[in-house]
Amino acid sequence: MGPAASPTGMAPLIVTLTTDFGQRTGYVGMMHAAIYRRCAEARIIDLSHEIRPGRVREAAFVLGQAYRHFPTGTIHVGVVDPGVGTARRAIALDVPGVGRFVGPDNGLFSYVLDAHHQSISAREITNRNCLAATVTHTFHGRDLFAPVAGCLAAGAPIADVGPELAADELLLLPRLLPEWEVSARGTRLLSGEVVHVDSFGNIISNLVDARFDGLDAATMARLKVRAAGQVVTGIARTYGDQPPGTPIALFGSGGFLELACVNGRAAGDATEGDALLGTPVIVELSPD
Amino acid sequence: MGPAASPTGMAPLIVTLTTDFGQRTGYVGMMHAAIYRRCAEARIIDLSHEIRPGRVREAAFVLGQAYRHFPTGTIHVGVVDPGVGTARRAIALDVPGVGRFVGPDNGLFSYVLDAHHQSISAREITNRNCLAATVTHTFHGRDLFAPVAGCLAAGAPIADVGPELAADELLLLPRLLPEWEVSARGTRLLSGEVVHVDSFGNIISNLVDARFDGLDAATMARLKVRAAGQVVTGIARTYGDQPPGTPIALFGSGGFLELACVNGRAAGDATEGDALLGTPVIVELSPD
Amino acid sequence: MGPAASPTGMAPLIVTLTTDFGQRTGYVGMMHAAIYRRCAEARIIDLSHEIRPGRVREAAFVLGQAYRHFPTGTIHVGVVDPGVGTARRAIALDVPGVGRFVGPDNGLFSYVLDAHHQSISAREITNRNCLAATVTHTFHGRDLFAPVAGCLAAGAPIADVGPELAADELLLLPRLLPEWEVSARGTRLLSGEVVHVDSFGNIISNLVDARFDGLDAATMARLKVRAAGQVVTGIARTYGDQPPGTPIALFGSGGFLELACVNGRAAGDATEGDALLGTPVIVELSPD
Repeated sequence: MGPAASPTGMAPLIVTLTTDFGQRTGYVGMMHAAIYRRCAEARIIDLSHEIRPGRVREAAFVLGQAYRHFPTGTIHVGVVDPGVGTARRAIALDVPGVGRFVGPDNGLFSYVLDAHHQSISAREITNRNCLAATVTHTFHGRDLFAPVAGCLAAGAPIADVGPELAADELLLLPRLLPEWEVSARGTRLLSGEVVHVDSFGNIISNLVDARFDGLDAATMARLKVRAAGQVVTGIARTYGDQPPGTPIALFGSGGFLELACVNGRAAGDATEGDALLGTPVIVELSPD
Repeated sequence: MGPAASPTGMAPLIVTLTTDFGQRTGYVGMMHAAIYRRCAEARIIDLSHEIRPGRVREAAFVLGQAYRHFPTGTIHVGVVDPGVGTARRAIALDVPGVGRFVGPDNGLFSYVLDAHHQSISAREITNRNCLAATVTHTFHGRDLFAPVAGCLAAGAPIADVGPELAADELLLLPRLLPEWEVSARGTRLLSGEVVHVDSFGNIISNLVDARFDGLDAATMARLKVRAAGQVVTGIARTYGDQPPGTPIALFGSGGFLELACVNGRAAGDATEGDALLGTPVIVELSPD
Repeated sequence: MGPAASPTGMAPLIVTLTTDFGQRTGYVGMMHAAIYRRCAEARIIDLSHEIRPGRVREAAFVLGQAYRHFPTGTIHVGVVDPGVGTARRAIALDVPGVGRFVGPDNGLFSYVLDAHHQSISAREITNRNCLAATVTHTFHGRDLFAPVAGCLAAGAPIADVGPELAADELLLLPRLLPEWEVSARGTRLLSGEVVHVDSFGNIISNLVDARFDGLDAATMARLKVRAAGQVVTGIARTYGDQPPGTPIALFGSGGFLELACVNGRAAGDATEGDALLGTPVIVELSPD
């Protein structure tokens, strides 16, 4: 049992889509069609179309948290692109053994670039043969990025899309994975920000569990987490371990620190997510 | 014409997903990937990812209303799981001639258990070979339930997932399909509750049409339905049969009594659904 | 590279779905199952399930903007059907070289009828062999339209669904693609209405770019666009060309005039879309 039990013995070629298009207007369906036209065998997975409009950092986080869970060779298309039709570059990335990435050069792939900068191969998309016959100024998802993904899915090498770029020419978002600092009074501080609010109202930060490696249980228990006007002490193991209504901090399934409320919403009502993005999340560790 | 006209002569193997994850964060896409890894041929259908957070009864209803409309052998995964990472069991069910079901043992499959308790075969999921290499405390949808569904889709027998459970050991939600009672004054009463509010603002109860079998048209016409502060007399045939704005009661396509408003919303605005879940729906039949 | 690079050399058979069902209740998943039962090889694309409830004109617009971007032979199912279960007809359309269309005869395919009225072949759906064994009064999406789409996908000719209809018997929405008029004072006026608001808060009209053919740049720059209580002068090229917060008018990727706000929402908050549908969008061109 397990992967070996698959009748075909191989994973299908997956193309994922991450956008801020919503699913009301048909924009996403037109991207699906552009991919299927070029590769009938692709399996298309809608990772998210509910990125808050224009929020590149949120899209980077959602994609950065997800891509490791897809089979090698998966093609991830990201289109949160407030600069569509302006001078920003369109890019395709290949990370051998990991996956491929297609989208605007606006920081959307920052977590990928950070983790794999030594092995990444980058191209600027310039080859008109990879694109729709007509490329509008306003919908590169349909006319440019989905067609390129379809061509790659159909077997085209990444070199076909356009000229090589050095990885360090690509735009990287600042403050991606914050590090500990020490205040004048000797308090250790880890200062991040809210990068996502999920459907449960969990407030997710860019503070990664690796920053807490080596802290013993007693130290973890006295950490203070400040976010969204709330203060929580200590780190919980899972959501259901505390009484309903208790605010808790824990590491979510992606390894990032989040503020949650047992059987409730840490983020208040569903519309608050927008306002919370970018607000501070601070972990404090006072001297013993 | 009809099913026999299919070029392959057989339905594909379908895996459905019902969760409260929303589609913003990529949680659902990671479940798709975990299934495709193990069975490239599966067709994955997103039944709902908009179950109100933690509302097990609503998920049970949505799944209970839908599963009969899927081909034999379909694998239904349900993950509305406020107890993830605690002691609650993970289970897989096989109902020969109907389908298979994978999820937490928290009542999510109550309508299935109620309808098929004599033929059901149940297993506790314990076999680590069916799961992701690492199982987090917070995301069993990705790490446990989707992998098990993928293995079953790839041909593993249900016995592989773990030891047998007796069907009567499984958690069944109370008040699943209410029966008529008679009040002291001789009024017959059928007392249920709101189990779902759909996108049209239709308020759907757990009162099933079979409870009205044998009532003649004159009796049906004088039934009083009380729900959400409204009272409606009689049962309509379909939505468009009355003038716009008329509140009506009718049996929906799943056979459950619902309160609707012709060309409008019985449930008021879109956010009211949450508050209505669990509130009473009462049908009264006074003595002649 | 391009379509020829596909390993199979052919696009898959696509079925698209456009409804007002939302994705909470499982209605859409049951339609998927009804299609797969009849054609295991179909690729189903969810074009939109977020059409505002009962808004046939919005559904017509979304479908009308999208269908040209799908491969020849694609089957488009539209179910925004406030008259379900009443006397309105169910129809299937074939437009050779373009696609096929299945849904109620309520104006949903108006843009298709308008563009292809000379080549269209129409049928009324009456053949019970194409439908589910039981057809409810309330859910023709599952019981009638999806089964017919599945049969067509599996190779049935459109003639199998029922008797021929003349194209001019079909319901066509009024004021589909408005034309220029001249006021008493000599001002040229193009008077349309809001037909859609997308997830970015862009307010989209039924005023098509072809109406502006032949206007020179100076004329375009002095057009006044009035919509949603706002007035914008001139037509922008794309969203990112102006400073954040600027209200602009531009032709969207579907060729229709829309009001947008750079890095913001022209439509205000997300719930305003409903109220804006059907309100006037007027372009004025005063005499020189």
